[in-house]
Amino acid sequence: MANMFLLPYGQDPANLRDLNQPLIDHSEGQLFLNEAFKIIMEEVLCKGTDAKQKVCEWKEPEELALLLDLELRATGEPQQRLLQRVKDVAKYSIKTCHPHFFNQQFAGLDYHALAGRFLTEALNTNLFTYEVAPVFILMETEVLRGLRQLVGWTEGDGIFCPGGSASNMYAMNLARYRLFPEVKSQGLWGLPRLTIFTSPESHYSVKKGAAFLGMGTDNVVLVKVDDGGHMILEDLDEKIKLAKSQGAVPFFVSCTSGTTVQGAFDPLDRIAGVCEKHKLWMHVDAAWGGSVLFSKQHRHLMKGVDRADSVSWNPHKMLMAGLQCSALLLRDTTNLLKKCHSANATYLFQQDKFYDVNLDVGDKSVQCSRKVDCLKLWLMWKAVGSIGLAERVDKAFILVRYLVEQMKKREGFLLLREPEFVNVCFWFIPPSMRGKEENADYQERLAKVAPVIKERMMKQGTMMVGYQPLGNKVNFFRMVVFSPLVCQKDMDFFLDEIEKLGNDL
Amino acid sequence: MANMFLLPYGQDPANLRDLNQPLIDHSEGQLFLNEAFKIIMEEVLCKGTDAKQKVCEWKEPEELALLLDLELRATGEPQQRLLQRVKDVAKYSIKTCHPHFFNQQFAGLDYHALAGRFLTEALNTNLFTYEVAPVFILMETEVLRGLRQLVGWTEGDGIFCPGGSASNMYAMNLARYRLFPEVKSQGLWGLPRLTIFTSPESHYSVKKGAAFLGMGTDNVVLVKVDDGGHMILEDLDEKIKLAKSQGAVPFFVSCTSGTTVQGAFDPLDRIAGVCEKHKLWMHVDAAWGGSVLFSKQHRHLMKGVDRADSVSWNPHKMLMAGLQCSALLLRDTTNLLKKCHSANATYLFQQDKFYDVNLDVGDKSVQCSRKVDCLKLWLMWKAVGSIGLAERVDKAFILVRYLVEQMKKREGFLLLREPEFVNVCFWFIPPSMRGKEENADYQERLAKVAPVIKERMMKQGTMMVGYQPLGNKVNFFRMVVFSPLVCQKDMDFFLDEIEKLGNDL
Repeated sequence: MANMFLLPYGQDPANLRDLNQPLIDHSEGQLFLNEAFKIIMEEVLCKGTDAKQKVCEWKEPEELALLLDLELRATGEPQQRLLQRVKDVAKYSIKTCHPHFFNQQFAGLDYHALAGRFLTEALNTNLFTYEVAPVFILMETEVLRGLRQLVGWTEGDGIFCPGGSASNMYAMNLARYRLFPEVKSQGLWGLPRLTIFTSPESHYSVKKGAAFLGMGTDNVVLVKVDDGGHMILEDLDEKIKLAKSQGAVPFFVSCTSGTTVQGAFDPLDRIAGVCEKHKLWMHVDAAWGGSVLFSKQHRHLMKGVDRADSVSWNPHKMLMAGLQCSALLLRDTTNLLKKCHSANATYLFQQDKFYDVNLDVGDKSVQCSRKVDCLKLWLMWKAVGSIGLAERVDKAFILVRYLVEQMKKREGFLLLREPEFVNVCFWFIPPSMRGKEENADYQERLAKVAPVIKERMMKQGTMMVGYQPLGNKVNFFRMVVFSPLVCQKDMDFFLDEIEKLGNDL
Repeated sequence: MANMFLLPYGQDPANLRDLNQPLIDHSEGQLFLNEAFKIIMEEVLCKGTDAKQKVCEWKEPEELALLLDLELRATGEPQQRLLQRVKDVAKYSIKTCHPHFFNQQFAGLDYHALAGRFLTEALNTNLFTYEVAPVFILMETEVLRGLRQLVGWTEGDGIFCPGGSASNMYAMNLARYRLFPEVKSQGLWGLPRLTIFTSPESHYSVKKGAAFLGMGTDNVVLVKVDDGGHMILEDLDEKIKLAKSQGAVPFFVSCTSGTTVQGAFDPLDRIAGVCEKHKLWMHVDAAWGGSVLFSKQHRHLMKGVDRADSVSWNPHKMLMAGLQCSALLLRDTTNLLKKCHSANATYLFQQDKFYDVNLDVGDKSVQCSRKVDCLKLWLMWKAVGSIGLAERVDKAFILVRYLVEQMKKREGFLLLREPEFVNVCFWFIPPSMRGKEENADYQERLAKVAPVIKERMMKQGTMMVGYQPLGNKVNFFRMVVFSPLVCQKDMDFFLDEIEKLGNDL
């Protein structure tokens, strides 16, 4: 043990033939894990959450590859070098828990959830049968029940999927199976052309899903939206009728609660009326916005969600459960999920087990190996309660209001529109461009502002925020504010920094 | 801080309006995480790997639900109670790292991989762009390159997927896209009926995938196997011809390297000939068996794999990288993966970035949020080298040979056949049944032996091993031996224990 930090591991050929010796030494391994944990605590959780430290340590890919020495070799390395590698990976990775990381919807950090994630990893449980996952089979059921209750359903079904795109695909597959159960055995060939309806501001996974499931992106009909990004009812109704008149079979409407860019909430209650009229499966992609259901004050944004057939909701976004944590919730009580997906493999789902085999929910999934994604959310929920989670949602809205007020007090910040959610979309107009909106090259110049500011902030490492065009609107920033680690001074910092980085443009 | 372990967290409404205060206290959170880490170390990694402790603490579901107090409530809980919850989850979960867990292919534990998993969780990186995942974009490329090299490809493509089923589905989708690129936009309706060929002993994900992708389980043609579970070439060739004669378009053969139950390796080199002749996509589902490629001595089992178009390989199985770690490897050099799956979302994959946007590989996936699954494998590989990983594979084969020899020396252990891999399939014949093979109820009685022994071992918590029927063979045990934590005495224990649990039957 004395020199374990110098010797490469596992290079003793005598070990191989000696059947009395396992190939892994527990005390050595645990010592390593302890040291690695300390590094994680220091480099990621302490430095990474410190506003005075950098969000990112930008390196060009070629340089970074050299620094990391990624090559995989024949022989192992000494423990001390491996610990340095842990440190390097931490150093050059983006600190998504940093208070100035506003780039995407996985910012922030929750320590209880993280403890649940470490425990999940250590237990290495495969969530398919009660036999191997007794705790998590019961826990997943309870967490899904809790989420369904917020949707407004006292019964139903559900499953955790590897991300919101997968959840959306599950919903599509269930919808077509409910309408045409023979699709499972015969495929789409005998069926009429099926069409899906969604808004152009919905997540791209609707199109990816249509392609993956064999229905094709052309069969995703885009319904017009208003300026705020909300699906227009009349257009939905008309396009459904048009599709029918062309011989297609409309079967699925994917509404969005919290669109990716603008954070818009489709009018669920009214869409439900259209879906009921035409007997279509109503799906709500609430991957991003679903968490408003915790808030008494803001849950009205999803009024009517209880009339949907399915809801995707990613607690790894606004609730900070950690990647990946995506629930598909179903109103169905006819065991559709299992009927649609099951393969009844006898090696795994034996029917002559000594316990109730209905607990073996793995066959509801199209995965076989399935990670445990419920523990982190459960532990966090236990820690702060529904009230604590609601507070986080409410506080995010309050912070956004503060940010927007400050923007209005400053010159050069132009909102796309008043935020409906916690996405704040805005252009920064550098002083040299102010008042020159009529110039012919104004939009072209404006489009170049955000990318330059983004490059500068990345290279200085001070913060991260995303930008994109949308329809005929040129590049603008999309700030997302939801991490309970941020506060007023981070909002002020954000605005100061944008000015600092963009004032000379 | 003094009473943090008594007060429920986040219940102070004053916090909500005070924009100067973040809602999470770092020192409190880090203290909790430290304590949780100690519990994980003690309860999971120390006790859980101790042969003298139980593998499982069996409870009936109703009792377990009470013990765990799963309900999610409005208010949070004190830290001390939450730590007790961490302990309880650990206590009642199956110890998959225990030396007597032989139930499935995710047994064992690697400390370096686990350190990588903790780091992955702490960093909470979404693997889609170089911007947010600089380290992991480069690392995934390198790990995929390393795996491809073992397959025998100096170039190609690949991606980590959420499990082997997803990897197999990706392969199917790519194969049909290569043949009919219009499927992405138009769906399957305009295409002839597509058929898939695989063996009845292949993994059930081939059928699940065919259903999910809209092709239907009826279009999965099962090719006959010999007694050992290997696909019979002549039958494959005939069935392809038959499908063609019926107007279908064969496009995909899914071979298996390491079948789930018997551990059989399909004869890849010869199947490649058939695929080339008929111009079909050859996929190798090596989720379980792929790791033999590390071993000079055993890689011959996959001879011809370099002639395949795609390979699924789960390092979370035999290499113990931890759930989930599943690679899809491709021989393709035409960027098929991106062409087939991309949606070109402008909010994420902006084309006016300041770095080479070819690094933004996220659009190759049908997921949007995608977990980092490469770090754990990379760190473990760095730690023990390819030689160390090869040793683990070799040692597993040696241990299996030892186990089989011991079985032959004892009465009552009847092998289905000599193991080809590290799956040992056998019946235990209790003394009362020995020599009575001719009795009319023999098979019926034998079928009941494994379930009873299984129930007893679970309830006593001494070990775990799976059983299943296969074709006309009644319930038999399938032992899998591959964890580097086990050694000879665990094999002896296993045999003693089966006898102890089953001798009175």
